[in-house]
Amino acid sequence: MKRISIQQAIAMSAVALIAFAASRADDAAAPLFGIKIPPGYRDWKLISVAHEEGNLNDIRAVLGNDIAIKAYREGKLPFPDGTIIARLAWSYVPSEENNKVFGRSQSFVAGAATNVQFMVKDSKKYAATGGWGFAQFKNGKPDADVALLKTCFPCHTPIKGRDYVFTDYAPNP
Amino acid sequence: MKRISIQQAIAMSAVALIAFAASRADDAAAPLFGIKIPPGYRDWKLISVAHEEGNLNDIRAVLGNDIAIKAYREGKLPFPDGTIIARLAWSYVPSEENNKVFGRSQSFVAGAATNVQFMVKDSKKYAATGGWGFAQFKNGKPDADVALLKTCFPCHTPIKGRDYVFTDYAPNP
Repeated sequence: MKRISIQQAIAMSAVALIAFAASRADDAAAPLFGIKIPPGYRDWKLISVAHEEGNLNDIRAVLGNDIAIKAYREGKLPFPDGTIIARLAWSYVPSEENNKVFGRSQSFVAGAATNVQFMVKDSKKYAATGGWGFAQFKNGKPDADVALLKTCFPCHTPIKGRDYVFTDYAPNP
Repeated sequence: MKRISIQQAIAMSAVALIAFAASRADDAAAPLFGIKIPPGYRDWKLISVAHEEGNLNDIRAVLGNDIAIKAYREGKLPFPDGTIIARLAWSYVPSEENNKVFGRSQSFVAGAATNVQFMVKDSKKYAATGGWGFAQFKNGKPDADVALLKTCFPCHTPIKGRDYVFTDYAPNP
């Protein structure tokens, strides 16, 4: 039998605990639409980028899973079931480092992560909300604010003609 | 022998011409560092996003090939040979559609494509410029402005400590 020291045992327990906490966070579903974080979403392909001023004051990237990207490129509406669109946001911060190089204050970059939102297409499951489910996560944990989640669909209603999706696919430079 | 109409022949010639033009654009190398557009770069993984005011007035996404992403995530410096970092830029335009929904002017999105720049790591080939080659393309065509390309490396010199790369990897939300 291999012996381990108390220090090793503590270290191993800590690793196990962190792994357990991480798996729990990944497994937690957001309320209302029951959406979990789609694995690997950070590696999805880019749809577009945006900046929101005001209370949000963020800079954001919109990514899509392969079904989303295919539909965007083919200009296919409505988006097919299985489409997932991810909106990643970060605080909008000036880059002193870049500004120094440019010789003027002009550069804004992604600071701390704000949150990630998902739109998931399932025309049957989410029939009452245009076929879309909505969720928001921060640090891997779902936003439990049901009242907030209930505002998603009404806010997207004005763009029903584009299947409730605000973001256009950014053209290739 | 299958007969084709004059209309079909014209259509086929047009398709062939477009395909030829597209392949030519993809094959053209930018001057100075001899860099071609890396195939499939629009599908690379996201590193971060930014906004530049001033004369640039753009909103941008920075993507990386798999070698770049791996090095970023492992915090490995210098970036290994084969790293390619792509900076895609679009004009920074207000979104009237989004603003209508928000009830205030706060939303800025990606408009027309501006250009795409690449940093390619090859420590031997580009030894004179910190191991990096630089290129800029617009609409698939290389920017032939050698004087402009010569400004790339000096501009990146202040961040030699981060292997001449400005953009940090944006944290996962």
